[in-house]
Amino acid sequence: MSLQSIKYKRGSLEILDQLLLPVVSKYVTVRGVEDGWRVINKMQVRGAPAIAIVGCLSLAVEIHPEVFETKKSLRQEIEGKLNYLVSARPTAVNMKISADELITLANDLTKDDAISVDEMKQRFLNATEAMLEKDISDNRAIGANGAKAILQHVADAGGAQAAGPVRVLTHCNTGSLATAGYGTALGVVRHLSELNKLEHVYCTETRPYNQGARLTAYELVHEKLPATLVLDSMVAALFRVKNVAAVVVGADRVAANGDTANKIGTYQIAVVAKHHGVPFYVAAPLTSIDLQIPSGDHIIIEVRPDREMTHVGEHRIAAPGINCWNPAFDVTPAALITGIITEHGVFEPSQLKAEIQKLLQL
Amino acid sequence: MSLQSIKYKRGSLEILDQLLLPVVSKYVTVRGVEDGWRVINKMQVRGAPAIAIVGCLSLAVEIHPEVFETKKSLRQEIEGKLNYLVSARPTAVNMKISADELITLANDLTKDDAISVDEMKQRFLNATEAMLEKDISDNRAIGANGAKAILQHVADAGGAQAAGPVRVLTHCNTGSLATAGYGTALGVVRHLSELNKLEHVYCTETRPYNQGARLTAYELVHEKLPATLVLDSMVAALFRVKNVAAVVVGADRVAANGDTANKIGTYQIAVVAKHHGVPFYVAAPLTSIDLQIPSGDHIIIEVRPDREMTHVGEHRIAAPGINCWNPAFDVTPAALITGIITEHGVFEPSQLKAEIQKLLQL
Repeated sequence: MSLQSIKYKRGSLEILDQLLLPVVSKYVTVRGVEDGWRVINKMQVRGAPAIAIVGCLSLAVEIHPEVFETKKSLRQEIEGKLNYLVSARPTAVNMKISADELITLANDLTKDDAISVDEMKQRFLNATEAMLEKDISDNRAIGANGAKAILQHVADAGGAQAAGPVRVLTHCNTGSLATAGYGTALGVVRHLSELNKLEHVYCTETRPYNQGARLTAYELVHEKLPATLVLDSMVAALFRVKNVAAVVVGADRVAANGDTANKIGTYQIAVVAKHHGVPFYVAAPLTSIDLQIPSGDHIIIEVRPDREMTHVGEHRIAAPGINCWNPAFDVTPAALITGIITEHGVFEPSQLKAEIQKLLQL
Repeated sequence: MSLQSIKYKRGSLEILDQLLLPVVSKYVTVRGVEDGWRVINKMQVRGAPAIAIVGCLSLAVEIHPEVFETKKSLRQEIEGKLNYLVSARPTAVNMKISADELITLANDLTKDDAISVDEMKQRFLNATEAMLEKDISDNRAIGANGAKAILQHVADAGGAQAAGPVRVLTHCNTGSLATAGYGTALGVVRHLSELNKLEHVYCTETRPYNQGARLTAYELVHEKLPATLVLDSMVAALFRVKNVAAVVVGADRVAANGDTANKIGTYQIAVVAKHHGVPFYVAAPLTSIDLQIPSGDHIIIEVRPDREMTHVGEHRIAAPGINCWNPAFDVTPAALITGIITEHGVFEPSQLKAEIQKLLQL
């Protein structure tokens, strides 16, 4: 089964400490929002969906044993502690969105006189736990949709791999360690494996933070998937010598026209894939698709400190005094993207906006 | 002036210890062939031309104070010690070629009865020192030819940079630290700067051995050239936001049709340059062009140990148990190469063979 980075049952929460990976695999117990704030702030948990879910569940485990006199006191606790959790990593927008949803729910339940304080607590716990389940079930749907699309593409092309398992390449970490479980792009890889259709997966190192080498490689080794680590500079050479059927990557944000912001290096892989005729897929839940943004030109790219590039831990690897350019993300134009894999299906970038508007009207 | 990695005057040789770079800049005295063998074997000196020159000069400083009774004893000393030096890094073909040339010279001088033993020693020292001078003068010619070609290309294109200084990108280390001085691709960058035509140079980190971040960045900082380090994954993103006029890289071996083997990642940069319409130049002395090899398909690529990818020093950066693919080089097809910059001029790949055959017949 896929790696469990979040272990939750009502009243109990543990998370896999990502700061110790890949060398040490150790779970940290999260007893309440103080612990939740700390594991998010220290980046023991990372990945936008995972941060939101661990934050909300840390409140659930704190509230679970408590007894509330009034719905108002419960509502105050929920609002105050969720806002506190948002402050752990203010730029992680998913935590803010989830907090707002739960605060709205708490307000609605407070106003509804037919509901007791105990019932309100149960409903709140259920809603929190539903987030965990929805993230995993969305990822499973993304995995199934993506695997089907890749296999269909190979079958249509009628290439050497048409009948058999395929080789795919992924970038950065989009697996159990970045989500509530299963993963987005890595969910597609997992689903190919479940179908016995994964011949091999190549994962890129993903400089400067090495999420591929540290985290994706860790997940792939953990699950004994047939996998090989390559450097970010090797993708073109790999495409020349291996018959790679598809690239599948995650997304930080997809614009209405399909332009996709993702981890630095994604755009370069898309260019190289185009040159070699390898289809390039983006796996993203609907929550990552922002129809308010018409194109990638409107996405602001965070530029991060030089030290991420010049050091590995305390070890300096670059010449002292050299300037660095360290954008955390780049934007892949829609024209280079074969399909955007969502929990509701795989869409061509040009159809994305219309298809999602259709879904939202249902 | 450009960084001096080899400091030589008759009877004295020092080399910059590349194992300590970029953190410590320390010269090591080479008193003879024992020292020469050791600095080559330990990789305190690296880069094929630099290895050959340091090896030969280490013999020159050893022979310089010695008195030889007979030409035969001098010849024996030369042959024995050069063959010993070749054993320090048997795959570095330049050392072998230089050793063979000097052994042939020693044999010829031994046979020539008009030459005394002292004169033979002087001629041998002169020949050794001429290698150092020729490498630097060839590099200076490459630098001038490359700079001219890049500026001409920009002028012909009539772009925004047509009148002013240009931005260029280079990969790996091809500078004073890899050659006797000045450098090949980095020699082109240096010459642009000497012409006041270098706006900025971007150097890639060059995983896994980080020659760009450690060595090229060190040279650029040392000479106060306007420079920025980028990761290997950032080249496409850089081309989108910066008006880069040209890529210039070195070569380990150029085939007769222009296909070029060079440090891993070169081919990927060439693909990305093509996509963005950025001209892509290879800088290589004639000694790196092998007309015996019809195309890149005949070049065997060395695959190196996983540990180079999984560790930085003693620090593990990849998940234990992951497979790695670590080719040291890749082959860039001639179709992606704008021009091959040599000490005799810049040639289109399709003209390379005919032009060099013409030069060799002169």
